[in-house]
Amino acid sequence: MRFFSDNAASVCPEVMAALGRANSPDTAYDGDALSASLDGAFSDLFGTQVAALWVSSGTAANALALAAMVQSHQAVICHADAHIQADECGAPEFYTGGAKLMLAKGAGAKLDAVGIGACADSIRSDVHQTQPAAISITNATEYGLVYTPDEVAAIGALAMARGLGLHMDGARFANAVAALGCAPADLSWRAGVDSLSFGFIKNGGMAAEALIFFRPELAQATRYRRKRAGHLLSKGRFAAAQILAMLENDVWLRNARGANAAAAHIANAARTRLLYEVEANEIFVRLTPAEAAALRAQGFEFYDWTPGVVRLVCSWDQPSAEVDALALAIARL
Amino acid sequence: MRFFSDNAASVCPEVMAALGRANSPDTAYDGDALSASLDGAFSDLFGTQVAALWVSSGTAANALALAAMVQSHQAVICHADAHIQADECGAPEFYTGGAKLMLAKGAGAKLDAVGIGACADSIRSDVHQTQPAAISITNATEYGLVYTPDEVAAIGALAMARGLGLHMDGARFANAVAALGCAPADLSWRAGVDSLSFGFIKNGGMAAEALIFFRPELAQATRYRRKRAGHLLSKGRFAAAQILAMLENDVWLRNARGANAAAAHIANAARTRLLYEVEANEIFVRLTPAEAAALRAQGFEFYDWTPGVVRLVCSWDQPSAEVDALALAIARL
Amino acid sequence: MRFFSDNAASVCPEVMAALGRANSPDTAYDGDALSASLDGAFSDLFGTQVAALWVSSGTAANALALAAMVQSHQAVICHADAHIQADECGAPEFYTGGAKLMLAKGAGAKLDAVGIGACADSIRSDVHQTQPAAISITNATEYGLVYTPDEVAAIGALAMARGLGLHMDGARFANAVAALGCAPADLSWRAGVDSLSFGFIKNGGMAAEALIFFRPELAQATRYRRKRAGHLLSKGRFAAAQILAMLENDVWLRNARGANAAAAHIANAARTRLLYEVEANEIFVRLTPAEAAALRAQGFEFYDWTPGVVRLVCSWDQPSAEVDALALAIARL
Amino acid sequence: MRFFSDNAASVCPEVMAALGRANSPDTAYDGDALSASLDGAFSDLFGTQVAALWVSSGTAANALALAAMVQSHQAVICHADAHIQADECGAPEFYTGGAKLMLAKGAGAKLDAVGIGACADSIRSDVHQTQPAAISITNATEYGLVYTPDEVAAIGALAMARGLGLHMDGARFANAVAALGCAPADLSWRAGVDSLSFGFIKNGGMAAEALIFFRPELAQATRYRRKRAGHLLSKGRFAAAQILAMLENDVWLRNARGANAAAAHIANAARTRLLYEVEANEIFVRLTPAEAAALRAQGFEFYDWTPGVVRLVCSWDQPSAEVDALALAIARL
Repeated sequence: MRFFSDNAASVCPEVMAALGRANSPDTAYDGDALSASLDGAFSDLFGTQVAALWVSSGTAANALALAAMVQSHQAVICHADAHIQADECGAPEFYTGGAKLMLAKGAGAKLDAVGIGACADSIRSDVHQTQPAAISITNATEYGLVYTPDEVAAIGALAMARGLGLHMDGARFANAVAALGCAPADLSWRAGVDSLSFGFIKNGGMAAEALIFFRPELAQATRYRRKRAGHLLSKGRFAAAQILAMLENDVWLRNARGANAAAAHIANAARTRLLYEVEANEIFVRLTPAEAAALRAQGFEFYDWTPGVVRLVCSWDQPSAEVDALALAIARL
Repeated sequence: MRFFSDNAASVCPEVMAALGRANSPDTAYDGDALSASLDGAFSDLFGTQVAALWVSSGTAANALALAAMVQSHQAVICHADAHIQADECGAPEFYTGGAKLMLAKGAGAKLDAVGIGACADSIRSDVHQTQPAAISITNATEYGLVYTPDEVAAIGALAMARGLGLHMDGARFANAVAALGCAPADLSWRAGVDSLSFGFIKNGGMAAEALIFFRPELAQATRYRRKRAGHLLSKGRFAAAQILAMLENDVWLRNARGANAAAAHIANAARTRLLYEVEANEIFVRLTPAEAAALRAQGFEFYDWTPGVVRLVCSWDQPSAEVDALALAIARL
Repeated sequence: MRFFSDNAASVCPEVMAALGRANSPDTAYDGDALSASLDGAFSDLFGTQVAALWVSSGTAANALALAAMVQSHQAVICHADAHIQADECGAPEFYTGGAKLMLAKGAGAKLDAVGIGACADSIRSDVHQTQPAAISITNATEYGLVYTPDEVAAIGALAMARGLGLHMDGARFANAVAALGCAPADLSWRAGVDSLSFGFIKNGGMAAEALIFFRPELAQATRYRRKRAGHLLSKGRFAAAQILAMLENDVWLRNARGANAAAAHIANAARTRLLYEVEANEIFVRLTPAEAAALRAQGFEFYDWTPGVVRLVCSWDQPSAEVDALALAIARL
Repeated sequence: MRFFSDNAASVCPEVMAALGRANSPDTAYDGDALSASLDGAFSDLFGTQVAALWVSSGTAANALALAAMVQSHQAVICHADAHIQADECGAPEFYTGGAKLMLAKGAGAKLDAVGIGACADSIRSDVHQTQPAAISITNATEYGLVYTPDEVAAIGALAMARGLGLHMDGARFANAVAALGCAPADLSWRAGVDSLSFGFIKNGGMAAEALIFFRPELAQATRYRRKRAGHLLSKGRFAAAQILAMLENDVWLRNARGANAAAAHIANAARTRLLYEVEANEIFVRLTPAEAAALRAQGFEFYDWTPGVVRLVCSWDQPSAEVDALALAIARL
């Protein structure tokens, strides 16, 4: 029973079916009809004109998004626990040509305008220090917390006031939207977000994320950088097909709601042990080593996070029997 | 009737079936059993211990291969028409941190030891000039010519004598092996090749190439660079599955033979018009604009290459009726 | 008797004296009065508002100039013999983050609009190829030829028409201006040049070149890149002092005229042997190995350039006795 | 009366005289006799075979040193207040191709093996995180503290045990050696240091630092990187001359002792106000805004550092009258 990562989940049937449908000869790279329809599909979803590019991984989406806004002698403000800082082996540095990541503070890997402002203010405005050019926040955060539209908008206002770009790592954007029940627009461009790594892989896709630019002109150079990075797939129609299949009939929301609900059920059983509120599909639970071992002995797989804390992640395809069993097992500890 | 690129081909049924079989929850990134079996599968195929990494594109494979052998202040010797120089938007420069590509000469995008040696000798051995650290050749070449094991070995000997690494861009390695009927080992490590971008996508895969290191120690840092480039897919088992499905029962050879045979058939009809011998699955044909238009009017799609020359590419799935029709149409011009 | 490089020359007395005068405590980096006066001094010289930065080497000036106009996924058009391509160990690639150099053709390392246009036209306008973003020409060229204002203006018009930046490597800009007797403005911004590496070191300086931006807004990010490259000297006033000393009383022109006159004298004696017209301070002379040896036996030092051709360079401080002796020795061959 | 930076100091007479002596035509770049003698001079000083390269700035020395030990996908452990992190506009990131700086903790910008070990241990040993490849410490630190040979050796032992390189930013190495009275070898290679940025500029030089490799093989690729960065000066003999002039007769020690003694005098007067022990030539003093203003009203120039703290730096050429006056003024506050 896997609760260690939503990356380990299966691919949802709508995506598998779409791969089959896409399997006839077609124009290469992103010259096919499916790829060409992405801009329109996401413009409809967000209610504004966007440019949308498929890429194979969230790391690529994040790094390309940052490279569109940050020059090599500049910096990105993010949380110390942000995926771009902690888990991408320096991808932002690679794609930007060596920009620096400035680490702001906030509980649960969540930033606010005060923390970001303090981080930016720690830098003198002279050529001896790399100057911030963008902010990157993760929604839902690496600890499963969700920024509300108002919280994002406060950061967006700060970004605008200081002339900084605003990127959202939305590897679990679907879970955030599902949790909030808000319009995708409210959580993104209406709140000042310039670019969004819209994740599909953890949520039932195979190998396709959408990089959304709410300022479409940022996409132009990005198309070259995507090619240069080896991320312009020659049979790109299969990447587009995955994303479109999940947009259709709101599969992305259905899947995210399922994962969130599973997490809520477990959280309810673990209420006294929670490190943070469970707002999306991740649950950080305080367990003694003996308790963790006891759960593992019952077949539950998960990561130790920090001493005394484990991470449980519910996937879109988590069987309800597994969820019930884990909730019960935790309650019985 | 598409003859413009083997990138436009469909995905072969064995690959589609393998994707379905791989679709259950599993360990993320390359921690799954399929990914772990790649080293062994390719070591068996090549008859020597290799390290094998999946990546999503040939461009990524090539660039990672070069970054493993070339530092940013060094250079790669390749042909002016090499894909890495002409069609990857500077991916080698990106992955190596700004190495230079030194362009050697040879007909049909094919190099030999003399041309490579002359290119290397054009550089003074001082710090004012970037010094070559590797050679990259493409087999089959961008003009569809095939290096024989002896031809590769001559270049391999030169590389060894000068302390240069040797990379083979094998986007159509399968077509070359199929054409020669040789052992894969003879065309690679036994001939001095250090790393091989072993292409599967043009030959019936979806989005997975194998990067093979015949000096397995080169793979170590490459694993970090792959992650850093956003090419460590979180559901990597689907990439491994594609490759393994094509290795099994020599599907890769079957597909390549099919494409080669189709090309040979057309070449036979176009004998007097060929720019180069047709050794793999690409045919460069001299056509007047009127002749090209006449073919297009009959429904054949292809690229104009240079004035008076068009490129025809046969895919693994090219219907024989299309092949017969094109051969006939050319013969009738 | 050194005729191998103007880099080997001494430092002119005005510069040495200026170093002495600058030697009192002052504000660090470029916060001192001398550094602050550079913009004004060059704006006066060029008759337009410019931004001027000192750097320690011509390579740094060139690379910073290109980095201001060319992104990492783009390209620079230059001559195959250009210093930036042949003698800077990949500095443009380093500073731009891996841009490509596209090599145009022209006799004597001199380009024209036709050759540049042909080079640019060889690239398809798609994301698979790096697109040119700038042109770099060298005046005087690596073979001692001088672009006239009209010749530069023709290239400037091409650059403007195609949306390309235009950089001039002016390591020997002084020699070019001295040879032409024109206004510096006519050879630079009035002819469409966006940035100029204005050389002082070969012409009597110690370790200071001026990087001139005729579009001053390009200097802004360059100040950060200069710092990041380790070229913002902490005692920068000594760099500024060198340059200002050579601007004062037109020392830069006096020195260049001297070197040019010496070269003209030797060229006159070598008229039948010249590879190119001698327009500045370099002389490329056809000599048999025996003839070259004979000259060396008389104490003349110079470089073999290509088989049968040697390069002679006259410095600003070349003793007239040495010049007369060399002219005579060549005449007597 | 300037106490704001030793970068603002004058150039010592021995260096000025050496520049004059070097001013005759000679071989360019580092082919001259002075440059060639650097290896020997520093090998003598350190009592072991070293490779020594001149560069124009401490930032260049540091960045080149790190690039010799750290690949782009790796990391450097340093203090958050280290010059390489806080004051070089990302030079280490630029020269390494985007390596990450991992920030360890320690009072007074001073690290120890425990803090470094904790920083290294915070990283999982997998491809998702950049792995440290080197440690960089500053001696004397940015807060004027001095590492003893034993303290460095403890860090050197840690570096060796973990397979990390050890770099010392010695912008004020002279002040540290002068303070300790130890052999330069004890503070460097005998304590496990692999490379040292040996500063001369703050200590009376003009624009030349020595980059010392105690593992001389590291210098090989560095020579290319130096050229590529535009730091191979064409009249390099003037850089070598500055350094040699300060090595001769231990001018470097004399100058550093002078600066240290001046700082000690002021520190004595400010004993109750010191933020840190004054071990070299920097003094961090707690002053109220009113007190700082009072000193400034008397003509003393210095930087505010953090709220309530100012930084005073004594230069090698600080007039004793200024030192006495400042000590007195502080005592009278």
